Amino acid sequence: MKRSERLVDLTNYLLENPYKLLQLGFFVARYESSKSTISEDLEIVREVFKQRGIGILETFPGAAGGLTYRPATTTEVSRQMAGELRQLMLEENRILPGGYIYLSDILGHPDTLRKIGRIIAHEYEETRVDAVMTIATKGVPIAQAVSEILNVPFAVVRRDPKVTEGAMINVNYMSGSSAKIENMTVSKRAFSVGQRVLIVDDFMKGGGTLNGMKALVEELNCRVAGVSVFVEGPFHGERPIVDYRSVLRVDHIALESHTIDVQLGNIFEEKLF
Amino acid sequence: MKRSERLVDLTNYLLENPYKLLQLGFFVARYESSKSTISEDLEIVREVFKQRGIGILETFPGAAGGLTYRPATTTEVSRQMAGELRQLMLEENRILPGGYIYLSDILGHPDTLRKIGRIIAHEYEETRVDAVMTIATKGVPIAQAVSEILNVPFAVVRRDPKVTEGAMINVNYMSGSSAKIENMTVSKRAFSVGQRVLIVDDFMKGGGTLNGMKALVEELNCRVAGVSVFVEGPFHGERPIVDYRSVLRVDHIALESHTIDVQLGNIFEEKLF
Repeated sequence: MKRSERLVDLTNYLLENPYKLLQLGFFVARYESSKSTISEDLEIVREVFKQRGIGILETFPGAAGGLTYRPATTTEVSRQMAGELRQLMLEENRILPGGYIYLSDILGHPDTLRKIGRIIAHEYEETRVDAVMTIATKGVPIAQAVSEILNVPFAVVRRDPKVTEGAMINVNYMSGSSAKIENMTVSKRAFSVGQRVLIVDDFMKGGGTLNGMKALVEELNCRVAGVSVFVEGPFHGERPIVDYRSVLRVDHIALESHTIDVQLGNIFEEKLF
Repeated sequence: MKRSERLVDLTNYLLENPYKLLQLGFFVARYESSKSTISEDLEIVREVFKQRGIGILETFPGAAGGLTYRPATTTEVSRQMAGELRQLMLEENRILPGGYIYLSDILGHPDTLRKIGRIIAHEYEETRVDAVMTIATKGVPIAQAVSEILNVPFAVVRRDPKVTEGAMINVNYMSGSSAKIENMTVSKRAFSVGQRVLIVDDFMKGGGTLNGMKALVEELNCRVAGVSVFVEGPFHGERPIVDYRSVLRVDHIALESHTIDVQLGNIFEEKLF
């Protein structure tokens, strides 16, 4: 197999196996080439992945000689993707009666979900994340998109227990916007004690739901690795949660003119410092 | 940029943009290379993608000179992935009280979801699919996984209307297992008239839910492109649906011994002919 052919297959292989410890010997056998040849191939891939903001190829020297590919977006690419998502949010016809925002098209397209996943995952590149948690139904695509980049499992919290979930952990929480006591529950076996859990959701209003999930993580004897939402909505009052990250922020919804004021979220504010 | 570097970036670009009509001129500008050089690059990629069962690179000649990458799994790879999923299904501790099967781990891991997505998408490689439809909550990861391969949007049907979905289309349907009249609803604007819709779900018992979604597709003035489930469960009686495809089939659940009998689904039966 020629170098040009190896590079195509190698690139595909790495992209399909993020965060896995791969042995140099595996590629030596796969391509029937020497270790030094494969090392040169990997050097080319590493450079292009870095330049283009695709990801980081880490190599571990020694007899075993392993490598790991981590998808990694640059802050510049992340900001550009957020700008594209912001444009989508400004499209007409998105404001529904009652001032709700229609998001299902964005949350139902692989292109936009991939962008959201990459932006949120980028925020946790330096953080240990063992699992992702979200709440049904519209958080699911966000959790799946983030999970794909981080290559960790995700679990879905529900308002009501289901017979298909096995033993469940249940918490009550105070909805931030309506000040009502609500209930949420998640399958116990979806998490192991001590795991670091990243909480994600599509939309944050008062933040009560996110706060409930934080309580749930604690009841599971896990730790919160972070809290991220796609859109942070307008809210007057004090939120019960402060340490969240948002991709976009909606400051104002003008019901009469059917327009919204959308800014990049606090993920990008932090990056300015 | 050297050929070796171009090939790494080109491979990544194609994998990230399936089913899109790409112009040769775009790559000429991206790599500051001649059309003939880019054509040679594409020829190398095409050959490796074909040999390794990654996908098909179609090129369109002429002044415009376009190309499209379609992920395409071989039947052999598809069957192998289904075998791996079957092994997961046979793991201990999967049978819940009442004979329900715990699937949330499989439906919550990017690796397994990618396999399910590729197997189902492979079944519709020769079929026009404009959109994917599923029902909340556990169908969502399946729909998203299939959508990613086909690069089409997906929409989520719910049991109850939501204020965040805009105008909705609603149908009543007969649950196959409990013979109760139930209700399902989906956002009207998620589909355009005449679209071909692929219906997917995680688990089929009686098939009533899938049949309800077929009715919903008709009410949307769309056409059913196909119906696929991850797991077809045991069912005694006549199902209201016959033209479905399944990745796996559970023939028997032994509550006493906590074991199940799992076979490859009818997607693979068809392939034998």
